[in-house]
Amino acid sequence: MHSFVELIARKRDGLPLGSSEIRGIIEGFSSGAMADYQMSALLMAIYLRGLSEDETVALTFAMLHSGKVLSLPEVPGVKVDKHSTGGVGDKISICLAPLVAACGVPVPMVSGRGLGHTGGTLDKLEAIPGFQTSLSTEEFARLVKELGTCMIGQTKDIAPADKRIYALRDVTATVECIPLIVASILSKKLAEGIDGLVLDVKVGRGAFMKNVEAARNLATALVRVGTSAGKKVTAVLTRMDTPLGLTIGNANETREALEILHGKGPADVLACTMLLGKEMLMLGGVVANEAEATKKLEAAISSGRALETMARMVAAQKGDARVVADPSLLRMHSAEVSITATRDGFVTALDALELGLSGVAMGAGRNRAEDSVDHAVGIELHQKVGAQVRCGDTLAVLQLRKASDADKVKERVLAAFTIADEAVAEGPLALERIVSR
Amino acid sequence: MHSFVELIARKRDGLPLGSSEIRGIIEGFSSGAMADYQMSALLMAIYLRGLSEDETVALTFAMLHSGKVLSLPEVPGVKVDKHSTGGVGDKISICLAPLVAACGVPVPMVSGRGLGHTGGTLDKLEAIPGFQTSLSTEEFARLVKELGTCMIGQTKDIAPADKRIYALRDVTATVECIPLIVASILSKKLAEGIDGLVLDVKVGRGAFMKNVEAARNLATALVRVGTSAGKKVTAVLTRMDTPLGLTIGNANETREALEILHGKGPADVLACTMLLGKEMLMLGGVVANEAEATKKLEAAISSGRALETMARMVAAQKGDARVVADPSLLRMHSAEVSITATRDGFVTALDALELGLSGVAMGAGRNRAEDSVDHAVGIELHQKVGAQVRCGDTLAVLQLRKASDADKVKERVLAAFTIADEAVAEGPLALERIVSR
Repeated sequence: MHSFVELIARKRDGLPLGSSEIRGIIEGFSSGAMADYQMSALLMAIYLRGLSEDETVALTFAMLHSGKVLSLPEVPGVKVDKHSTGGVGDKISICLAPLVAACGVPVPMVSGRGLGHTGGTLDKLEAIPGFQTSLSTEEFARLVKELGTCMIGQTKDIAPADKRIYALRDVTATVECIPLIVASILSKKLAEGIDGLVLDVKVGRGAFMKNVEAARNLATALVRVGTSAGKKVTAVLTRMDTPLGLTIGNANETREALEILHGKGPADVLACTMLLGKEMLMLGGVVANEAEATKKLEAAISSGRALETMARMVAAQKGDARVVADPSLLRMHSAEVSITATRDGFVTALDALELGLSGVAMGAGRNRAEDSVDHAVGIELHQKVGAQVRCGDTLAVLQLRKASDADKVKERVLAAFTIADEAVAEGPLALERIVSR
Repeated sequence: MHSFVELIARKRDGLPLGSSEIRGIIEGFSSGAMADYQMSALLMAIYLRGLSEDETVALTFAMLHSGKVLSLPEVPGVKVDKHSTGGVGDKISICLAPLVAACGVPVPMVSGRGLGHTGGTLDKLEAIPGFQTSLSTEEFARLVKELGTCMIGQTKDIAPADKRIYALRDVTATVECIPLIVASILSKKLAEGIDGLVLDVKVGRGAFMKNVEAARNLATALVRVGTSAGKKVTAVLTRMDTPLGLTIGNANETREALEILHGKGPADVLACTMLLGKEMLMLGGVVANEAEATKKLEAAISSGRALETMARMVAAQKGDARVVADPSLLRMHSAEVSITATRDGFVTALDALELGLSGVAMGAGRNRAEDSVDHAVGIELHQKVGAQVRCGDTLAVLQLRKASDADKVKERVLAAFTIADEAVAEGPLALERIVSR
């Protein structure tokens, strides 16, 4: 084993690192033998020199085995999870997990919190009074077995090296690096004891990947490395130029996700849920083809079984299950400020990034990991791309603790709407699909 | 002012940093606002993306102004120092500083300690009983004025940011980076209050720069940046394939340097001293040309004035000045182990790197900055390149605390000698000379 300095020098010079060397690095970092400042120099060298697929697989496994790895042998069936690379208004996990579980595919889901302009599933779920996202790994396994799904946060047992490395990347300009993103995502997801994984790789203004090529590179790397790890992996590239659905916040997004399980909710949220649900059922092996998957998902909603799974999960995780039956119980702050159109025309663009950042500025999200969020502030969109509006029409409503809190964001929210003379058609939700070889 | 993360990202992407941004980085690092792990990520980005000449000047000044900057207005004349990039057996500073001072050019000299295979002037000077290298900057200035020279170590006042950055570079594989080397050397040297600087850039097996091109690039950058800082700068590239002189160690090297001031000593040590001394006298403006410089240096030795300056300096720095008059008082350990030739032939190579590392292994140098050195262990060379030897002739003598300490290095020292059938001529000492534009 070479010294850490020699290994950093190797990557600095563009030379490959072996699996045992990468394992030695992560073990050394975990034990404290390798310092933070050495890891950050290595991360920058990786950012600029890259990692091969073999190196990325080795890094993923080393980070995975820095913590506890669940195997869930007591849960029968092909266990499948979904991961989204993050977008604005992306509340899909909340309705997707119980829906897919109700169709017979177990969904052990470990989610994250919001950071930057994107929201996080845990923050949204915690808008349900009492809902607990910090369960032990034993409790998690028990609930997945009993209910078919459970949704928790990354415990300190799961890939602790990833947690520390992510924190370093965040402050050393090494976040946007495909092999490091792949290892971070997969080391956490492989720790859940899954057999298959559906990846929703977002692309566009409101996503981390701004163009299709970058998103495709990330999706391809995720699928390859996940497949090398022995998992069935499917990635779909979906558009994230405008927010998903009509809500941006926490309680309001959870309400919108629950409405999907009631057979209601916005068309784009339903479409994204169905798209990812079909992929999960196919990976789970409970359907023969896409048409059968669609039928099964629709039946789980119309029969109320998906809603029932959600209610049982919420109750088991100490949440107030009445909100599942009546999502309108998820209240927002009562101070409302309307944003109105300043001209006649058609909404031709709705900037997800600006709306996401406005939500963060209002207190719905975080700039730093240690910030807390206000579950009851948010933005409700009244018009989306394609809508015809007249000057004075309400475009959006800001929901706040007090009306004056709107001052710092209302110009920004208005500017997020582009209104033009001619209507434009929105492109399709799904752009590409990348599957295991 | 951008955040540190944004500035790291700029350099990561190969974009230039402005002077005020670089100053902000060093100020932030000094105050603790920028963390070690952020600096090390930036250092790796600089290693891989480079710094322009303007950026290097800005970094040098920012590091310089992280501490106290002497101006020595009370010392008349053009003040000139010498810096060597480090070699094996390089004891030149010890005889050069008093020699040049005796010729009327003030030499305020801040030196370093040995690290890795190269020795350090401070360690060698401290072989003189009682000699103090930690003086206050006020005391330093007073002695330069009174005696014409003073030799101290880097105080905590001088370029403290450089000290911390150097320690980080050492453990993050970012040492061998020309702009960082330039900023490190010059930020310390500019803090001494000098007007001119002669740089001895070593090139070869025993130097950090292994080939002439790398050494020329470093020398050119040092001269350009030093000139931009308003100083007169001359660099010479000198060969460092074999050790300078016949001694490697501390007390023995100081003894050899003192012998030069007695008009004795090995030819190569004298030649290097004269070469650098001429450059210093020319920068100091006390001679019109090289021939005049040679005459002045020779006269300072033959008249005893250089020796007298050395004796006054040693006494002023609390050292035992009797060793100046009688260098043989600088004793080595009495256990001696001879290394003998195993064949007849001519010495055609003498590996400075291997001999330097052997010296470190014997205790004469340091692997880590916190190690201490033994001033009385060392290697005495009996044969150098060009010598004809017979099997059984003594090539070198190891001087140790006990003879068994030789076991771990004697093979290595023997292997450092290449003995062949045909003699080869050694190349010239000085390879190139680079001056201010």
